[in-house]
Amino acid sequence: MTAHEQGAPSADARFLEDFRTMSAFGATPSGGVDRQAATEPDVAQRRWLEELLRERGLRVVYDRVGNQFGLLERVPGAPYVVVGSHMDSQPTAGRYDGAYGVLAAAHAVFRIAEQDAAGASEPVYNLAVVNWFNEEGSRFTPSMMGSAVYTGVLPLETALASRDSAGVTVAEALAPTGFLGDGDGPEAAFCAEIHVEQGRVLEESSTTIGLVSATWAARKYAITVHGEQAHSGATVMADRRDALVGASMLVVAARELADRFPGVLHTAVGRLDVYPNSPVVVPSRAELLLDLRSHDEEVLAEADRLFQEQVARVEAAASVTVEQTLSHAWDVNPYQPEGVALARASAEGLGLSSGEVMTVAGHDSTNMKERVPTVMLFVPSVEGVSHNEGEYTEDSDLVAGLAVLTDVVRRLGAGELAASGTHTPGRA
Amino acid sequence: MTAHEQGAPSADARFLEDFRTMSAFGATPSGGVDRQAATEPDVAQRRWLEELLRERGLRVVYDRVGNQFGLLERVPGAPYVVVGSHMDSQPTAGRYDGAYGVLAAAHAVFRIAEQDAAGASEPVYNLAVVNWFNEEGSRFTPSMMGSAVYTGVLPLETALASRDSAGVTVAEALAPTGFLGDGDGPEAAFCAEIHVEQGRVLEESSTTIGLVSATWAARKYAITVHGEQAHSGATVMADRRDALVGASMLVVAARELADRFPGVLHTAVGRLDVYPNSPVVVPSRAELLLDLRSHDEEVLAEADRLFQEQVARVEAAASVTVEQTLSHAWDVNPYQPEGVALARASAEGLGLSSGEVMTVAGHDSTNMKERVPTVMLFVPSVEGVSHNEGEYTEDSDLVAGLAVLTDVVRRLGAGELAASGTHTPGRA
Repeated sequence: MTAHEQGAPSADARFLEDFRTMSAFGATPSGGVDRQAATEPDVAQRRWLEELLRERGLRVVYDRVGNQFGLLERVPGAPYVVVGSHMDSQPTAGRYDGAYGVLAAAHAVFRIAEQDAAGASEPVYNLAVVNWFNEEGSRFTPSMMGSAVYTGVLPLETALASRDSAGVTVAEALAPTGFLGDGDGPEAAFCAEIHVEQGRVLEESSTTIGLVSATWAARKYAITVHGEQAHSGATVMADRRDALVGASMLVVAARELADRFPGVLHTAVGRLDVYPNSPVVVPSRAELLLDLRSHDEEVLAEADRLFQEQVARVEAAASVTVEQTLSHAWDVNPYQPEGVALARASAEGLGLSSGEVMTVAGHDSTNMKERVPTVMLFVPSVEGVSHNEGEYTEDSDLVAGLAVLTDVVRRLGAGELAASGTHTPGRA
Repeated sequence: MTAHEQGAPSADARFLEDFRTMSAFGATPSGGVDRQAATEPDVAQRRWLEELLRERGLRVVYDRVGNQFGLLERVPGAPYVVVGSHMDSQPTAGRYDGAYGVLAAAHAVFRIAEQDAAGASEPVYNLAVVNWFNEEGSRFTPSMMGSAVYTGVLPLETALASRDSAGVTVAEALAPTGFLGDGDGPEAAFCAEIHVEQGRVLEESSTTIGLVSATWAARKYAITVHGEQAHSGATVMADRRDALVGASMLVVAARELADRFPGVLHTAVGRLDVYPNSPVVVPSRAELLLDLRSHDEEVLAEADRLFQEQVARVEAAASVTVEQTLSHAWDVNPYQPEGVALARASAEGLGLSSGEVMTVAGHDSTNMKERVPTVMLFVPSVEGVSHNEGEYTEDSDLVAGLAVLTDVVRRLGAGELAASGTHTPGRA
């Protein structure tokens, strides 16, 4: 008997009801949510989740960066299968991104707790639901902050000192919430995360469960274009060193680069800030964040080379100087194949179609898989709409994903996968 | 005997000393100033000017939008020659822009008051020094606010309700300063303004006094590019409707348009705001302010037509929609030729070289000349540097300009030019 058969239909109905309740936190008139990290709706939602986890017998703890854990101790002293995602959102976002993964994790652990109580399982590892702090990075940079601190790739002090646009630090924002703990969270042996796909691969191939095999390679640049302030009406055109003209040329060049490698290269500038940004002043400075992403490392390297040619062209054409910092760079980065195989077995056991996909976007599991064997699952998202209030996933896919996640966590918790590493922050 | 001969050299030295004192308000480390409208340095400088005007016997009054007037009543009940400029600045700006014109106006009126006291003049009109409120428009839009309200082209209520980026209204910013009067200011019969040239014409032709004959024609658009929010990494490129890509294409197109009409057409986008402006979100909206300016109305019309073609191209290429509002439009707009002739006579009388120039930038006198005969003078600016902390004019040019302005105001005040209209706000 699988978790899916055991829990359905009343357990699925309860999950969907909880999902609707949860989606009211920070709900926007257009059907999305606005729950940036440590804002009031994010805080209120975390209190709601804490209550839900406690009601179902989990012990709730917070680590030093505000990651929220619900612990189910089954084997005293054993490490944990850490399962979850994030509940914070972009300023205007869909209801599913991250939040689905946290609630599915909670319900998966609830179901396994019931199996435990019924004597229907053989616990080897403990289970932890996690709601990572500030995955989105829209209020505080960098993104995936909570999991980055947990896995040791980002110093705690750096995270706590990060400021939002109003000058408020993470430490200041979290202090009054009670979400700043004094520990390092549970020790992880495995990780699992489920998320809505942020693309159309599953939908177009009529596949219910995406088995994430790897992340796309990416290079991210923080770019500052330096020009010189001048009167935007009076100054002779030939004398102008217009930082916005230079920045705009780079935005257009990045887009044209993607068009040269259709389907293989994604490029974007999501953020552009102009100074002094006054109606009658030629901008002296423009700051932008540029991403280049590909599943083909050779294409990415070639795109980067071509982009550098464009930078040189723009510097000459707009009489500006371009300062670049390579802020992030990673190659195509696989998830553990044994985790993919385990998830495929779970989907097959439940009679659900599955297939391997890659993830273009980063997830907290991207950090976790560097430390412990990690399973990442996707469910379809209608038309691949993402970071948009119109994001939508069918209820049937939500509950199918929950069923597979439950079975994956059950297997991981039963020791079906050999642990290849453990997370031991601060336990030298 | 001219004002120049009478006032120099001690009066010139006093003027230059006052100019240095004045330039300390909002001084920046790079030698410029930061005195946006109704900020602390602007307020402090206005108090300093009020004291200076009072010390020299002028009566200081404020109108309902915070324009600051120093009145020299010579003929009870007669209307005024209104002479001045603005002391507010862009966020980082030069010391001369506007401020020179206000201080030169004050010293011109001081000199004429001395002539009056010496019985060396025949007063027909009263004199008013003016420091117009918020000419720059960087903190509160629109620019040239104070003179626009004074001349009746902008409703007072609209001006007072304008908000800065922090949400503070003009009314709220001015209320605690005491600069909100309850009258409409003095009735104008004539106007004069002196300003540093924001170009290189005078410098390149070795001319000391610019006689401003007309403004360039201009069309200004407030443009909103509408796209759709999406994940900037994961979303398939073909599905993207990237508002920033569309806006960037328009910025580049505007620049390329200027290159097609070298020396004849100026184009600029000084301001661009992106939403939601998050690192991993395809922008759904970009707002920009575009100017097209020319001294040739046919070129301007052709440039506008070509720009509209580019808008259509961009809408198709970036899958966005472009919403345009023509916020300002004016043709080549002459100053009264009799005023230009009067100013030429003043320069010649003082033995100073002069020549007609056009102004590309708008000035408060641009508003005033629509109501009363108005004289606009320029002095050279080294390399035409403007809206930049490096703006610089030689002391010898500053005092030469002051001498001509004094003589122009003396002649206007003596009734040498027939009044063709009077300003009578609120006196129906």
